[in-house]
Amino acid sequence: MNPVRFIREKRDGHKHRQEDLKAFLLGYLRDEVPDYQVAAWLMAAFLRGLDAEETLWLTETMAYSGKVLDLSGLPHPVDKHSSGGVGDKVSLVVGPILAASGCTFAKMSGRGLAHTGGTIDKLESVPGWRGEMTEAEFMERARQVGLVIAAQSPDLAPLDGKLYALRDVTATVESVPLIASSIMSKKLAAGARSIVLDVKVGRGAFMKTLEEARHLAETMVGIGRGAGRRVRALLTSMEAPLGRAVGNAIEVREAILTLKGQGPEDLLEVALALAEEALKLEGLDPALARKALESGAALEKFRAFVEAQGGNPRVVEDFALLPLAEEVPLLAEGAGVVREVDAYQVGLAVLALGGGRKRKGEAIDHGVGVYLLKKPGDRVERGEALALLYHRGRGLEEALAHLKEAFVLGETASPAPLVLDRVG
Amino acid sequence: MNPVRFIREKRDGHKHRQEDLKAFLLGYLRDEVPDYQVAAWLMAAFLRGLDAEETLWLTETMAYSGKVLDLSGLPHPVDKHSSGGVGDKVSLVVGPILAASGCTFAKMSGRGLAHTGGTIDKLESVPGWRGEMTEAEFMERARQVGLVIAAQSPDLAPLDGKLYALRDVTATVESVPLIASSIMSKKLAAGARSIVLDVKVGRGAFMKTLEEARHLAETMVGIGRGAGRRVRALLTSMEAPLGRAVGNAIEVREAILTLKGQGPEDLLEVALALAEEALKLEGLDPALARKALESGAALEKFRAFVEAQGGNPRVVEDFALLPLAEEVPLLAEGAGVVREVDAYQVGLAVLALGGGRKRKGEAIDHGVGVYLLKKPGDRVERGEALALLYHRGRGLEEALAHLKEAFVLGETASPAPLVLDRVG
Repeated sequence: MNPVRFIREKRDGHKHRQEDLKAFLLGYLRDEVPDYQVAAWLMAAFLRGLDAEETLWLTETMAYSGKVLDLSGLPHPVDKHSSGGVGDKVSLVVGPILAASGCTFAKMSGRGLAHTGGTIDKLESVPGWRGEMTEAEFMERARQVGLVIAAQSPDLAPLDGKLYALRDVTATVESVPLIASSIMSKKLAAGARSIVLDVKVGRGAFMKTLEEARHLAETMVGIGRGAGRRVRALLTSMEAPLGRAVGNAIEVREAILTLKGQGPEDLLEVALALAEEALKLEGLDPALARKALESGAALEKFRAFVEAQGGNPRVVEDFALLPLAEEVPLLAEGAGVVREVDAYQVGLAVLALGGGRKRKGEAIDHGVGVYLLKKPGDRVERGEALALLYHRGRGLEEALAHLKEAFVLGETASPAPLVLDRVG
Repeated sequence: MNPVRFIREKRDGHKHRQEDLKAFLLGYLRDEVPDYQVAAWLMAAFLRGLDAEETLWLTETMAYSGKVLDLSGLPHPVDKHSSGGVGDKVSLVVGPILAASGCTFAKMSGRGLAHTGGTIDKLESVPGWRGEMTEAEFMERARQVGLVIAAQSPDLAPLDGKLYALRDVTATVESVPLIASSIMSKKLAAGARSIVLDVKVGRGAFMKTLEEARHLAETMVGIGRGAGRRVRALLTSMEAPLGRAVGNAIEVREAILTLKGQGPEDLLEVALALAEEALKLEGLDPALARKALESGAALEKFRAFVEAQGGNPRVVEDFALLPLAEEVPLLAEGAGVVREVDAYQVGLAVLALGGGRKRKGEAIDHGVGVYLLKKPGDRVERGEALALLYHRGRGLEEALAHLKEAFVLGETASPAPLVLDRVG
């Protein structure tokens, strides 16, 4: 493999051979191929595209570039991925449901970036809870509890981490084959047999149109199948935030309420839909999902999971254990029916309050956030509270501006479906 | 200027702003923008293109990235560039003609790479001749002799040198705006008022078709005009080598013979055409070119030029001063009329003999080469010599194979025009 010839091949729109692609990328991992050659190749791949086979080869090269977990000895190992949304605490609901339904939900999760939060950040609101653990601890918790969520280990798919860092600084992030292979490489390395994907669509998501989202979903499902896994994707709406809570601690609270049967309907609908798909992939009865919820078994799994990872399990009963910043309401300046609550603007508001990260490695304030009192379809009177902001002073003006921008009132609202399509 | 946003702009096919382009590239020159970001940008520029204004801005940024020569105090400062051909010793003929016609021909020249030779390599065949000199020496020789040819100084357009090295290892060389700006940046920095360009077309050239060559010529002329210079380009055929000699010392010999009126017609035709265009650009009588040749004034200029740069001026009378390797003929295996002498294959033959460079920095053997006894249109009998090879043993088999491949015999040959078009 001659790197210049390899780059030229993609530049001119030709297809790579599997062994060349592997040699080029593993050469990069070993620092034998320099980053400037990989940067040129990434741009060529961005603009010329990678076909389904090339995308699978890229994914597998990344997936097997480091440690690979073997969950095959555990019952029904399932994993779940969300393409990132605002107020997206679905994993905190789906995980306990699946674990209580006989599956092993053993997941590696990322931290939040930009306007969307990360599952690990949210869970770290729980006093004592930790996402860092050894591989042995991960396997042990998967076996004992059936539910474990760990911070993404740098030992898994290290080539993906190295490539992603380079994409980030060379304007080569927003490419479907590159995004899909990055996500799926980590899923393959994490070892689950079945994978459900929640691909978010709309103004609060990275994919703005149904067409883009379907393309991403199909590409990920294609990779997963090509690698011998069972995969299904749901395309779900991310026009308005999911649920009413957006932040960290307040999202954990809402997830617990949902496990208690007191949560918002939209969150419940998406969580159940994903859980049911996962059960079907594993050949189990999808009705187990609702049963696990109604019986309280899912809530018990959540409690056991929190405790196993060092957290205070009493958080399930006592929300006062969760941090909460100072509250201030946003009042409606007019009256009408809420037509839109722009998820992107709400995400930016929480970011301004310090609940998210503008840059990698930034600290997060778990107690800040936005609680939406009104959602699309709700009637609002002038002076009525639209939302509650939880803040520490910092960024309040900016957050209020974003929130005002988020709410659009009108005469009527036409409710849109939440689960838009299924792929795979 | 945010580098990622800048790269994204070109990736998405948008036009840059002049100040951003300048900031990005000068940032690279100062090692503030890393090479992997420039590599990604180069690939985006390669695939998305640069428009005429962007190409001019890129060229000017490179041209003024280092030292800039001021030839404005000298009479009629002219420069000449060839896009690279086989047997291309045109500068060795044009320079003396123009200097003898009242112009200042002060040129920076490169070394050869791949299958084409470089003017500096050829001149270094002359015992004692040196292309390395200080800026003061360069200016002094330009003033005194009216003719100076120096090895390209790394102080001129250093950004071009840095960018070219990166393009070379990232498969981003063969882009018309990038090629044109690289050439023209050095011409702008070298300070001549008028520039004639010899854009070679055909199998021995980098531009294989008239269309490509015209595009390159128009781009270079556009840049030169945009930068306030007088520029004209000739598109000349490079199907067969120019003249009969291909190598280093034997090309110098052929150039001297041409200055004596004993050279091959094709070389004379191209050299005169370029010299006449240069004279016209400077508002001088184009007939001066032929007069300078016929009066012997051009030959005298060549002699003075060799002496001024440390060479033995007696080389003009005594070709035995030039190195010459062992001679072996290539005999015709059939009879007929020579239809083609493939310049590319001849170039590869000389490269195999050690007369060129496969890699930058390689040493060159000045005494090896190929002398074509037969050219297109010539009648050949079986067993008659087609060419003479000058060799030191090394690469002889390979060279013979390339040369056999080069000669195509047939029933008749249709002579093609040499000067194909004029741009500007």
